Amino acid sequence: MLNAPAPADRVWDQLPREAQTQILDKRLRFYVIDAYRVAGDTELGRRINTIMQTCFFALSGILPIERALAEIKQTIQETYGKWGADTVQKNLAAVDQALAHLHEVRLPDHVTATRAFAPLVPAEAPDLVKTVTALMLAGKGDWLPVSAFPVDGTWPVGTAKWDKRNLAQEIPVWDPAICIQCNKCAMVCPHAAIRAKVYAPAALTGAPSAFKAVDYKAHEFPGFRYTIQVAPEDCTGCNLCVMVCPAKDKSNPKHKAIDMQPQRPLREVERHNYAFFLQLPEADRTAVKQDVKGIQFLEPLFEYSSACPGCGETPYIKLLTQLFGDRALIANATGCSSIYGGNLPTTPYGVNRDGRGPAWSNSLFEDNAEFGFGFRLALDQHSEQARALLSRLAPQLGTTLVDELLQADRHSEAGLAAQRQRVAVLKQTLSALASPEARRLTTLADYLVRKSVWIVGGDGWAYDIGYGGLDHVLAMGQDVNILVLDTEVYSNTGGQQSKATPLGAAAKFATAGKATPKKDLGLLAMTYGTAYVARIAFGGKDTQTARAFQEAESFPGPSLLIAYSPCIAHGYDLKFGLDQQKLAVESGYWPLYRFDPRRLDKGESPLQLDSVPSRSDLIQFMRNETRFRIVEHQDPERFRELVAAAQRHNAYRTALYQQLATVVPSTVARRGERSTSS
Amino acid sequence: MLNAPAPADRVWDQLPREAQTQILDKRLRFYVIDAYRVAGDTELGRRINTIMQTCFFALSGILPIERALAEIKQTIQETYGKWGADTVQKNLAAVDQALAHLHEVRLPDHVTATRAFAPLVPAEAPDLVKTVTALMLAGKGDWLPVSAFPVDGTWPVGTAKWDKRNLAQEIPVWDPAICIQCNKCAMVCPHAAIRAKVYAPAALTGAPSAFKAVDYKAHEFPGFRYTIQVAPEDCTGCNLCVMVCPAKDKSNPKHKAIDMQPQRPLREVERHNYAFFLQLPEADRTAVKQDVKGIQFLEPLFEYSSACPGCGETPYIKLLTQLFGDRALIANATGCSSIYGGNLPTTPYGVNRDGRGPAWSNSLFEDNAEFGFGFRLALDQHSEQARALLSRLAPQLGTTLVDELLQADRHSEAGLAAQRQRVAVLKQTLSALASPEARRLTTLADYLVRKSVWIVGGDGWAYDIGYGGLDHVLAMGQDVNILVLDTEVYSNTGGQQSKATPLGAAAKFATAGKATPKKDLGLLAMTYGTAYVARIAFGGKDTQTARAFQEAESFPGPSLLIAYSPCIAHGYDLKFGLDQQKLAVESGYWPLYRFDPRRLDKGESPLQLDSVPSRSDLIQFMRNETRFRIVEHQDPERFRELVAAAQRHNAYRTALYQQLATVVPSTVARRGERSTSS
Repeated sequence: MLNAPAPADRVWDQLPREAQTQILDKRLRFYVIDAYRVAGDTELGRRINTIMQTCFFALSGILPIERALAEIKQTIQETYGKWGADTVQKNLAAVDQALAHLHEVRLPDHVTATRAFAPLVPAEAPDLVKTVTALMLAGKGDWLPVSAFPVDGTWPVGTAKWDKRNLAQEIPVWDPAICIQCNKCAMVCPHAAIRAKVYAPAALTGAPSAFKAVDYKAHEFPGFRYTIQVAPEDCTGCNLCVMVCPAKDKSNPKHKAIDMQPQRPLREVERHNYAFFLQLPEADRTAVKQDVKGIQFLEPLFEYSSACPGCGETPYIKLLTQLFGDRALIANATGCSSIYGGNLPTTPYGVNRDGRGPAWSNSLFEDNAEFGFGFRLALDQHSEQARALLSRLAPQLGTTLVDELLQADRHSEAGLAAQRQRVAVLKQTLSALASPEARRLTTLADYLVRKSVWIVGGDGWAYDIGYGGLDHVLAMGQDVNILVLDTEVYSNTGGQQSKATPLGAAAKFATAGKATPKKDLGLLAMTYGTAYVARIAFGGKDTQTARAFQEAESFPGPSLLIAYSPCIAHGYDLKFGLDQQKLAVESGYWPLYRFDPRRLDKGESPLQLDSVPSRSDLIQFMRNETRFRIVEHQDPERFRELVAAAQRHNAYRTALYQQLATVVPSTVARRGERSTSS
Repeated sequence: MLNAPAPADRVWDQLPREAQTQILDKRLRFYVIDAYRVAGDTELGRRINTIMQTCFFALSGILPIERALAEIKQTIQETYGKWGADTVQKNLAAVDQALAHLHEVRLPDHVTATRAFAPLVPAEAPDLVKTVTALMLAGKGDWLPVSAFPVDGTWPVGTAKWDKRNLAQEIPVWDPAICIQCNKCAMVCPHAAIRAKVYAPAALTGAPSAFKAVDYKAHEFPGFRYTIQVAPEDCTGCNLCVMVCPAKDKSNPKHKAIDMQPQRPLREVERHNYAFFLQLPEADRTAVKQDVKGIQFLEPLFEYSSACPGCGETPYIKLLTQLFGDRALIANATGCSSIYGGNLPTTPYGVNRDGRGPAWSNSLFEDNAEFGFGFRLALDQHSEQARALLSRLAPQLGTTLVDELLQADRHSEAGLAAQRQRVAVLKQTLSALASPEARRLTTLADYLVRKSVWIVGGDGWAYDIGYGGLDHVLAMGQDVNILVLDTEVYSNTGGQQSKATPLGAAAKFATAGKATPKKDLGLLAMTYGTAYVARIAFGGKDTQTARAFQEAESFPGPSLLIAYSPCIAHGYDLKFGLDQQKLAVESGYWPLYRFDPRRLDKGESPLQLDSVPSRSDLIQFMRNETRFRIVEHQDPERFRELVAAAQRHNAYRTALYQQLATVVPSTVARRGERSTSS
């Protein structure tokens, strides 16, 4: 039985030679069903488990079909009953529809295909990917001899791009005529599968005929061309790019600058377009204005991860790599982000054309903050040694070079680029020196370019299991950046409550709905007064997200970003994830703020509120997600009480934050100064 | 060489027989010095190390005496130089004075003593104490055979009272004529070595002639007598009782209701007085008004611990046992409080006349909150089982008894006393029933009286090593009480900085003075909004301390008491500990507050500030303690900067708390209700 969109009388001709041969050799009976169509028709979205299960029982004869159907329907009542009558009805309908769409294929007596299975990885992949990675992707890793692996245990990065998953039924198609060039589609894509570039027209030489380009409209790259390009085989079809697209065709409101269309017919042509797109030159980092739009012209060094379609975490990581990836060290806590971040045999973290990309590692669930803190200490030791050696070798190296290296601007893109050039000159100069100190400085020279330490993990790590360490690292005052991908639940282990789980949400260990409020990690961190803290939601206010990342990275102490991350565990179609983020912010469920201790020096309150609850839609926000709705189905009275408690808690927190944002440090400073003289 | 107050020509006659015999048998040369006098004369307080060291070198001949003195003086410069010239001068003076006060004793040719060494423990001690504990106290525990120990491994409680340490040079003496009967002396005593009682006059029958008593002045026990009594051999001579005493003799301001006098001449008579005092009846708990004064009429079940003289932690623990000790379970984190709390071979935790006292145990440094949380879960299981069995056995037990047991007042002293009586009746009734359920209920019956779970530890535990668990327990919402004895440093391991160490204080790992502010544990706990939180200092405002303990215990969820605890690690004579606590509160260094979520129900802000910074004396507070002053000696400029930073931080925190205390929940609640109807 094959789940395929082709009808029974045409599916045979679409099979590759190997499949046809096996079917005939083994004298199989061959059935086909378009399960995604049935799922779509019965409003189950992409969930085909009920449909395929029904077909299996119909064909296998394990039980009499009437008994099997009765059992399946009984199980549906039991499994989905708590989600409401609607969910039950849809699944029951899918059972009935399934058999109507299951067809036997009449087989010819000989192989008709001329086409073979496509290789699992493309021919242009590196040797190791073809000889090792591809076999592991095919589930045949046990066949590999030890000798096939690199002798030193290294594992190449940026290999997710060779794993062409072709998950999407439909992929986005760009209409340059309508596009307003906001780049939001690229920003929200969880898989870096839709991208934007600006480039000189000359770069279009040799472009495939179907390749789309249009004049770039903004002023900073005059005369340049602009392209939005989809990676057709890496897109997961989550729809977020379409949902975020603000550009509508006035004559046809259903048509936007990005529409979804079936992938299969587009696959080949867009594959070539995407290959051409990738080899186009990257924008000059020093010329790009690093706002929400401009950042999308910076190359993502995190792409095609194995995260779920519509994942709310990965856009933050992608943004991180666009901004700082060429000099980032990432300590990743155990959890979803460590799985899709290092998903053997491929890794989504890659390098740019200069060979620079994030260094990434995963330690334990319970020590990730400390693990990343160690990166910081090691970096500081290395750069101190490099600086000391520079000073000592100044007579041989020339004081101008040494002084420039020691006094370089370490923050701006231009400064970083200039310092990298100086380091190249330094290495060149050092290669002519034979002393042990010169050799030592050669190995340390790269530490003269400022690195960026990122400690990344989910709420299970940050709020619970690793919180003791996270708190300690916040208190240590060192320059590390902490990114909490807050799905408000243990996502990777199957939806257990964490201290980040909100009041009213059902989760494992809180199946009746959590009765206590979400732990306020940001407020906890703010109590130190010495850490940068921001609460962000890219779908709520993307400009605030981008600014918070940049401020956190530039803050010369610990920074904490708490990033709202829609997740399949919340129980709704994640193509609505952006709307839900907006509703979360506007209802006061997820207040946006930035707490920057540097503002104290300017006589301002360190806390800036970036959102004001504008609507009383908390209950609407909650009803949109199964994690809350399930409580209402189980116990409407309890739901009512929990909603009321959540509303009270929200209102109290809003009042609290508004008060905190008014603490006037100027008065404070004056008072402090007076008492100094006592 | 003996350190003794007796002069050389009289010390021989004061030695017991065993000592005289050994000196003569071994043909020893015998020297005497009154090192405490030398220390007093040279303003070294009770520190005799320099003096004894000098004498050792003078007598031992290891080095020529001139060279030894030069080396000692050099070492004094190096060791105490950072504490300032004053400290160096005092120690140098002590070296010179030491030799002038060291005298050889002329020995007779025979033993003259008629007195033998007093037994290490009194004759009235229980057998196990005499046969086991006493040998261990004598440092001869290795001599004990395994058979000497209880076969089931149990260890008796309340045995610290048999370890008569006689540490005090001087002990307090009470003058009933001046005393205003405030009981503050008893409250501040770290060792429960000065106590107050009210009792019917008839109880005085058979009192020793020197026993002091006076009419009780307040109205609640009309016609009763009142006594303040010292435990002469358990007092450590810390002076806190004298310092706190508010009652002065108007004709002689140096004379207070409590004065210090040499212990030796008072020892015998006060020992008898104390023994009589102990057997006087305890006050009726249901009749005592539980305010600061009245609580001192409740028996402490924590006494004579091995804590340092003047310890700032133990008064809180003593208070805890007075209020709740007869039904408390204490989980004790590793640290000072676990050492003096279970200092093999004795324990300071005892039982009252009914055999009731705190159950106490120590687990690991890193899991104490979880450990105590387990007590709570076990108690709840046990009492639920007991209540279920009660209902099931109601036909046999009588519904009146069962209903009263199930619906008892579980909070007031009267309610607890009545419930204990009912439980006694229940046990009596059960003894006539043979069923397994009846036997099971007999073992569980005591759980029908409400227990009180206390999780106790220092700042190293609560702020650092055990914080992850403490945070988790705060979030769990269960009824546990957490007492943090905050010395702001790892006291027991020798003074390493913790996250509780304040800005500006020197500590190990922060020898130049800590540059970051103290972690605000209370504010962290308040962010949950569901925990009772109080910051207390018994020397700052004892009424607030007492109220916070009572509110915490009655709060039906997690409670956190953060208790300021002066410590020898702060580097000043702890007899000034109360003054320093006052200064800490008044300068804003240690703000007092109570955060009670129950107040929200009454439409009030949960946060109540119990102190307002009234003086700008932060720098005075800091200069009084060596931990801060040492920074000034090392680096006056850094000290100035740290003081300014501390003042700014204090002022900011004051403003912050004042804002927090104004968050008006009534507005909040109304806003919440409006949005419920959306």
